[in-house]
Amino acid sequence: MRIALLGGTGDIGQGLALRFARDTDHEVLIGSRDPEKARDAVERYEAELEGRGADANIKGFVNEMAADRADVVVLSVPPYYAGDTVEAVEDVLDEETILVTPAVGMQGDEDGLHYHPPSVGSVTQLVAQRAPDEVPVVGAFHNLAADALSNLDDELELDTLVVGDDADAKRTVLNLANEIEGLRALDVGPLANAAEVESVTPLVINIARYNEDLHDVGVQFH
Amino acid sequence: MRIALLGGTGDIGQGLALRFARDTDHEVLIGSRDPEKARDAVERYEAELEGRGADANIKGFVNEMAADRADVVVLSVPPYYAGDTVEAVEDVLDEETILVTPAVGMQGDEDGLHYHPPSVGSVTQLVAQRAPDEVPVVGAFHNLAADALSNLDDELELDTLVVGDDADAKRTVLNLANEIEGLRALDVGPLANAAEVESVTPLVINIARYNEDLHDVGVQFH
Repeated sequence: MRIALLGGTGDIGQGLALRFARDTDHEVLIGSRDPEKARDAVERYEAELEGRGADANIKGFVNEMAADRADVVVLSVPPYYAGDTVEAVEDVLDEETILVTPAVGMQGDEDGLHYHPPSVGSVTQLVAQRAPDEVPVVGAFHNLAADALSNLDDELELDTLVVGDDADAKRTVLNLANEIEGLRALDVGPLANAAEVESVTPLVINIARYNEDLHDVGVQFH
Repeated sequence: MRIALLGGTGDIGQGLALRFARDTDHEVLIGSRDPEKARDAVERYEAELEGRGADANIKGFVNEMAADRADVVVLSVPPYYAGDTVEAVEDVLDEETILVTPAVGMQGDEDGLHYHPPSVGSVTQLVAQRAPDEVPVVGAFHNLAADALSNLDDELELDTLVVGDDADAKRTVLNLANEIEGLRALDVGPLANAAEVESVTPLVINIARYNEDLHDVGVQFH
């Protein structure tokens, strides 16, 4: 499979790129608005992987070209760019392309971070609203600390929570996430259940802030 | 210390009563609107504990009397009774009594449970608003599955998340929660951070619904 990480030069994109490249046989496409930045990121990721003796099957493209070539397109962009990024690539998406969104809306104040969803209920649902009707949208990878994901020495032992209305697309993303070593993907039902999933992201950041021994913290359910 | 569990005949109250009685030296007071129900629950809890060779230091009272005698008062009542229960006992609360709230507002539909906080932001903050100003309020024990907590064979290995504006009261509750075997209490900052903590409750219920092998699921952060 080909996995495009739009905004793949950023924090969560980097972690997913390194993990998919190291742990799976899928081809990883790094997308950026600036193709030069995408290629620079690919060089860094390849150096990191080759230094660990891992094969690096990664290419860099402008976002539209990465999305056009991919079976799974991950919108690893900040939440306020998620809608615009969908529109920038919508002409190359179709019912064969799974659109995956890990973005979460948050606002901070002196106490901590707070969940701040768009009026449609969640960023995941906003992406579904902005995507062409025939494109299946799946929420996943919301609650993974970017630094932990990017540090290939970190064994994770974490869960990621997956929501989607299209059962086949959701199953594909569950399987894909389970291919990352140390990651377990759990089904949390339809897109309507995304808000409670997204809320965990400000929570884990608050936990890291108030507990000295818990940095880049993730979550496990059992 | 004396710990009163108001609504201590219900699901979360039963679990906390059994665990506090088995794992700590504190005295457990079961409160109910009906003192007869409280005493019946005490008999059941004592039988369960004695069957396991554990000391049972539990007494039953009407809510007001339980609260009057306690250092820590846990509002283990359904969320829509939380405010009224505070008002029923407010005359016996003072700055020496810590009021602990585990309640969460949720609404269900065909997709799952959804977080549904009161307009003040969270049930935890609603309790703080309804309590007398001098009474410190702490949010804790929100995300523990009642059945897991009540089953003393379950070793938990779970986290509970604690919020509060009064540092001393929060510290007391963190220590108290850590005394329960298999439970780790994490500080999540002030009451303003309660919503993201409460949101985990509908999430864990949705996870249990959509994953066959995960019943009565709890959460761990690392």
